[in-house]
Amino acid sequence: MHTTGRSSCERYAGRVTLVGAGPGDPDLLTLAAVRALRDADVVLYDRLAPYQVLAEFAPDAELIDVGKRPGHHALPQERIEALLVERALAGQHVARFKGGDPYVLGRGAEEVFACHLAGVSVRVIPGVTSATAVPSAAGIPLTHRGISHSFTVISGHAPLTDLELESLANLGGTVVVLMGVNTLPHISEGLRRSGLSDSTAVAIVERGFHPDQRTTTGELGDIVLRAGRAKVSSPAVLIIGEVARLAFDGDASAVELIRRAERLTSVPA
Amino acid sequence: MHTTGRSSCERYAGRVTLVGAGPGDPDLLTLAAVRALRDADVVLYDRLAPYQVLAEFAPDAELIDVGKRPGHHALPQERIEALLVERALAGQHVARFKGGDPYVLGRGAEEVFACHLAGVSVRVIPGVTSATAVPSAAGIPLTHRGISHSFTVISGHAPLTDLELESLANLGGTVVVLMGVNTLPHISEGLRRSGLSDSTAVAIVERGFHPDQRTTTGELGDIVLRAGRAKVSSPAVLIIGEVARLAFDGDASAVELIRRAERLTSVPA
Repeated sequence: MHTTGRSSCERYAGRVTLVGAGPGDPDLLTLAAVRALRDADVVLYDRLAPYQVLAEFAPDAELIDVGKRPGHHALPQERIEALLVERALAGQHVARFKGGDPYVLGRGAEEVFACHLAGVSVRVIPGVTSATAVPSAAGIPLTHRGISHSFTVISGHAPLTDLELESLANLGGTVVVLMGVNTLPHISEGLRRSGLSDSTAVAIVERGFHPDQRTTTGELGDIVLRAGRAKVSSPAVLIIGEVARLAFDGDASAVELIRRAERLTSVPA
Repeated sequence: MHTTGRSSCERYAGRVTLVGAGPGDPDLLTLAAVRALRDADVVLYDRLAPYQVLAEFAPDAELIDVGKRPGHHALPQERIEALLVERALAGQHVARFKGGDPYVLGRGAEEVFACHLAGVSVRVIPGVTSATAVPSAAGIPLTHRGISHSFTVISGHAPLTDLELESLANLGGTVVVLMGVNTLPHISEGLRRSGLSDSTAVAIVERGFHPDQRTTTGELGDIVLRAGRAKVSSPAVLIIGEVARLAFDGDASAVELIRRAERLTSVPA
């Protein structure tokens, strides 16, 4: 099926498509992503993408697990890039199936430039990023009139500088940290030292969109303790800011959430 | 088709689904969005969503244009909320088709709380946000190893405070301004006054994903002049930060873009 309708010229000109896979829920794939997978001759995927869908959407394609997991790179980034180029130069349509959006903390641009450098045609299909969707799955709007009109997405992979922590504290918007479980103590301590109140709301959403998704809530002053007690682990998205009070946290009824929102928006942001 | 398979109970229990419509390209709708539209009895849409797809995905549904355009609210927000609730209480499945992601600067949470308050079941389907996808369509990754490991999305609807401008300048990440065309002079002047170099790269992407998408590039020191000359107008996404140098700006070949990326990443970020 995946060669139907191509001219012989198109058939033999290889190319690469970076496919944003969204935050893990197969229903959050885009129509463009599904089309690219159906058309691909080979799919390179890793554990951050919902690779279970490949059986349905790329049944005839060769599937290569490049195995990126936290602290465990089965294939180094350069090898992934070399493989994309090699297969495209051999005439294949190569889909690189990447969790979230390829251009949000995903090393997508490095893969695109590797293709450019080799003269290989490459296209990027944006995806639903976990940075916005995982908070949403926990009931948290990143912006809300009267509470926050901005949000910053930052990698917690490496420690933040003092200037970054101070800037985030002063900006007053929502802070979203991806890959932040290990640096949680550093970040929460740094934001407090930079002037964010101990009572600032924090939510940690683990395994967004999976059946065992879990949200741990607290405040900047106690979140490290709470996260430790709950044995919070990766992957998780950390949300810091008053909007985090709107999380579905188990004991909050709809009426309680409305009360919280009204209380939050009744004071000038 | 859209009532098949429902039990009579489900059929008469109304509900609301906020459907993230993505940045305008119908191919960037998610599978979940398409399913919700197909199932809806009535769809409330505005000009920020790709409403042209409704003929295909919601052929039998009643379509209501709530007409939100910049500076032109055909229906005030409260009326939209009242309408969602009213129709759901009458037993309908109401889809609220919203551009981008419902929880990114989209007043989605207000609509959700209106439903909670009325005891109406409501669900949010995340969408591809213009904040990440429109830069991507212009070739700009919001993060890139060695250049930027964070990005801030902020509304340009109202002027930013001095503290916000200073914080953004100090944070050193990419800044994405939505609804920022009118406040461009204020923002660029404020960021320069706060210490961002005149040579900081800036790109403005108008009408992302439409056939007449256009990117205007410049630096903080001359972008107001360039935007004026190009008669830049809404809707547009403004990207401030060195990643903006990677924009497809018409005169840059792939090799030139690689050279730029190498130059940018050869200095410590």
